[in-house]
Amino acid sequence: MNNDSLVRPLVSLVGAGPGDPELITVKGLDRLLEADIVLYDALVSPELLEHARMGAELIYAGKHPGRHSISQEAIHALLVKHVQAGRRVVRLKGGDPYIFGKGAEEALFLKARGIRVEVIPGITSAVAVPAAAGIPLTHRGISSSFAVMTGHRTEDNRPVLVPQADTLVYLMCVSNLENIVRSIAGERGQWDLPCAVIESGTTKRQKVITGALRNIVGRSKRAKLEPPAVLVVGEVVRLRGPLR
Amino acid sequence: MNNDSLVRPLVSLVGAGPGDPELITVKGLDRLLEADIVLYDALVSPELLEHARMGAELIYAGKHPGRHSISQEAIHALLVKHVQAGRRVVRLKGGDPYIFGKGAEEALFLKARGIRVEVIPGITSAVAVPAAAGIPLTHRGISSSFAVMTGHRTEDNRPVLVPQADTLVYLMCVSNLENIVRSIAGERGQWDLPCAVIESGTTKRQKVITGALRNIVGRSKRAKLEPPAVLVVGEVVRLRGPLR
Repeated sequence: MNNDSLVRPLVSLVGAGPGDPELITVKGLDRLLEADIVLYDALVSPELLEHARMGAELIYAGKHPGRHSISQEAIHALLVKHVQAGRRVVRLKGGDPYIFGKGAEEALFLKARGIRVEVIPGITSAVAVPAAAGIPLTHRGISSSFAVMTGHRTEDNRPVLVPQADTLVYLMCVSNLENIVRSIAGERGQWDLPCAVIESGTTKRQKVITGALRNIVGRSKRAKLEPPAVLVVGEVVRLRGPLR
Repeated sequence: MNNDSLVRPLVSLVGAGPGDPELITVKGLDRLLEADIVLYDALVSPELLEHARMGAELIYAGKHPGRHSISQEAIHALLVKHVQAGRRVVRLKGGDPYIFGKGAEEALFLKARGIRVEVIPGITSAVAVPAAAGIPLTHRGISSSFAVMTGHRTEDNRPVLVPQADTLVYLMCVSNLENIVRSIAGERGQWDLPCAVIESGTTKRQKVITGALRNIVGRSKRAKLEPPAVLVVGEVVRLRGPLR
């Protein structure tokens, strides 16, 4: 511990990883074990929270569409209140804190108030969910690049981005799947492009639906696909056969 | 342990993470603690290897340009030999096994020989190295997509890919930095685009060089940049000021 850490309060912004509770980092688990206060998001595994010590306060800070849930301002206020009261505060987020999920917004808010923030990365679903389904995002001769986007409809209704990368990964793709698939097929002119939709990847509830752009929407509907799910598009999806 | 695991040998393909030895996953460390044989790559932290049990055999399987080093075929042969001799084999790779680094090639080779493979993801440098330098790859209103490529010159000398994503990440960028920067500026027509080059990110030797496309090559030369390094390009680099 240096002088700085004795003087100024610290919030640990920790990535919980993609779902499997054993995929948190050693450093992230260490912070969770020591926390007095854990503010956690919707996609954080309940098994992971069992690691918190007796007496630690666990605060649910997830958002669910259509359900009353805590605002971003209230999350900021809770973090400031608890850390200024001298408590060890862990802000636990699904995946990686800096890949979507407003981690940098919270860090900026805290830093502007003189609060130190340490960011402990987590395994992003963009990489680990395809891997758990037998799909590497890169593979020699097949894919030497990948791009990651949210599948969510944007507030300003921008068209879905289709970057020129070998493998495309759309997080949170369920509500907007048809639009995403149409955009990719329109951009690439290839309805036969292999793809997979993976629900609850890396967990015991994992469900994998494979196909091509032309049939993935119908297959996902028949499989009653539910959030959270990741869409992967590209030739690497064909490796799932031999790799699973 | 199910029946399958009693019958067929298993290789654990484990991601060591981006450099900081505490950024391995709990599951990955667990496999390392139990291993009889650890085949590890050049970018794996030496501190991490100290977790292997007494008597475990540690085999260096890294490649260094210009130095005699083990071939991919020899790595395959070693994995097969040790796992078929009944040993618990961990193949430990820098970053994530399925993001570059030939993880899927090794998995395909082993599976074709009836050997089970479990893939335990690691934190990829593409995400954690920028984060450790105070740069989130996504941020509301600034970046809602990112693309990841190798910066290496390709064998067939393909031009460097510049996907249409808000943030661009080039891994292993040192030897080809000037070419990458010219390609991006050519594609985007914006020499003022903010960027950062991060050497040995997340480790104690981390070095961060920031600038814009127009001056990053000169600055990297003056800073005597050495591999491994990651190039990040995009407006998110401006967040490094308030976030570091």
